[in-house]
Amino acid sequence: MNGTANGTAAHKYDPNFTDSLLQAMGPKTPERARFVLGNLIRHLHDFIRETELSPEEWMRGVQFVNAIGQISDSKRNEGQRICDVLGIESLVDEVANKIMLDSDETPTSSTILGPFWSPHAPFRELGDSIVQDPYPTGRLTRMHGVVSDYKTGKPIPNAIVDIWQASANGKYDFQDDNQSVNNLRGKFRTNENGEYYYYCYHPTAYSLPTDGPAGVLLKLMDRHPMRPAHIHLMISADGYKSLTTQLYPRDDPYVTSDSVCAVKDDLLLDFKPSNDPKAELDLEYNVTLPPLKPGQKAGWVHTVF
Amino acid sequence: MNGTANGTAAHKYDPNFTDSLLQAMGPKTPERARFVLGNLIRHLHDFIRETELSPEEWMRGVQFVNAIGQISDSKRNEGQRICDVLGIESLVDEVANKIMLDSDETPTSSTILGPFWSPHAPFRELGDSIVQDPYPTGRLTRMHGVVSDYKTGKPIPNAIVDIWQASANGKYDFQDDNQSVNNLRGKFRTNENGEYYYYCYHPTAYSLPTDGPAGVLLKLMDRHPMRPAHIHLMISADGYKSLTTQLYPRDDPYVTSDSVCAVKDDLLLDFKPSNDPKAELDLEYNVTLPPLKPGQKAGWVHTVF
Repeated sequence: MNGTANGTAAHKYDPNFTDSLLQAMGPKTPERARFVLGNLIRHLHDFIRETELSPEEWMRGVQFVNAIGQISDSKRNEGQRICDVLGIESLVDEVANKIMLDSDETPTSSTILGPFWSPHAPFRELGDSIVQDPYPTGRLTRMHGVVSDYKTGKPIPNAIVDIWQASANGKYDFQDDNQSVNNLRGKFRTNENGEYYYYCYHPTAYSLPTDGPAGVLLKLMDRHPMRPAHIHLMISADGYKSLTTQLYPRDDPYVTSDSVCAVKDDLLLDFKPSNDPKAELDLEYNVTLPPLKPGQKAGWVHTVF
Repeated sequence: MNGTANGTAAHKYDPNFTDSLLQAMGPKTPERARFVLGNLIRHLHDFIRETELSPEEWMRGVQFVNAIGQISDSKRNEGQRICDVLGIESLVDEVANKIMLDSDETPTSSTILGPFWSPHAPFRELGDSIVQDPYPTGRLTRMHGVVSDYKTGKPIPNAIVDIWQASANGKYDFQDDNQSVNNLRGKFRTNENGEYYYYCYHPTAYSLPTDGPAGVLLKLMDRHPMRPAHIHLMISADGYKSLTTQLYPRDDPYVTSDSVCAVKDDLLLDFKPSNDPKAELDLEYNVTLPPLKPGQKAGWVHTVF
């Protein structure tokens, strides 16, 4: 590689080409856009020179990019999925959380939102089940825990716990005509002791859709398309930083090779036999949220979709 | 920027994240794909860390990428156009030609193919006109020259000169229902003296389509969407390296700010008054082609489309 610390590369190609393109940006380009686009263009040009990318390889790349949008629709975001396979969403999440916390500590690890969160999940009562459409192999689990303040340890009442998960066939409601809308989705408010509890399923591992560019990319990288079984959570409370995370059964065979790079050690949990006659399994998960500092926003996801 | 010469960055984020993704590629990934994808992933991750790209910016990027394919079809390649606006096609062309020539010399400057070349342009006779559908403001030009061997200077008979251009309204036949198929396209064979000659139009500057992502990008970069007026040429002959290039009127106002970064100094030409009563203008353009070395291919474009 020819890259150097200041981003200019020593190579046999026109040394002014990249700079002259960056200088073509006019005065109306906002400073942040100038910086972000400039950095992106510099990296893309260095990539081409360092790999001496051939015209055939480039054209295959163009066709790959065109195919991403062509297979995307209101229910399928292939662009996001490609980012996930390349570790990009996971990295963006890491950066956002480090900046928000302004420290290397993470009260509870966050991880990526993924493409299946819905802004329309219904509020349900504590103790309810999110299973609207039972699936024969679904293993009912009583999930419970306490949401508390990272600094003081005090429980947080009225926090919102938003949970979503695939059914035991590995499909979300969006993807499966046999599921009713909001099956395996729900929002719960913690009680005065900061407690939440509800019934869900032990999660099931599933494959990313491989009939589009993400499948092509995974095959080229000789990687499997499986996601380890997981439960999605988004937890928010007034005055606290929101948390978006995923929880994994510790014994899932895919936790060391997640196709979207979203597993972190402290998100591996043990599902235990339940004492509750209604449920086969018991899952305890306690969450700490850091209080917002003055001027901080609680999170980002709600505004994007 | 935190990038260093070997591509690993000193930063506050997980130092193993990028390497662990690269190591996830399996044994069936071809070596070239491992190298190219590895380099691309490293640059994209460095881009995210160096710019501390926010989730909102990233999601805007995802939507931008999805929009590229959504507006593309068999007549519109927005992915290629985005590459052109970012200087990528021009850079890939430079790399390919440097590698092919294996030297810093360029007999006649090449430049990008662009999205409007057709493999179906008809052969025409020397002296014919490519103007099938006259346009009121079209300025007929007699274009002529000699194709010769870069090493020996000898003329090359039977070379193929493939020309295509937009009409005087700035539109190619593909883009304009008022033009017949192959209007302003044609292939000519040089005679025994290596000469070619035919009638075409003085070219007309035009705007890239701005109703898609390329328009969004140009606006964000505060750049105009204009291409300087140009004539496309692809010249090939048995035993010689093919040449793909574009010729520009020296006095065109956009030659210093081409929206697709494809102008090179030696491609600026003077259109002169014609002595030929059939034509208003005269354009002479002589071309040299380098002989192929053993094992070299003549070019790439014919195989890609």
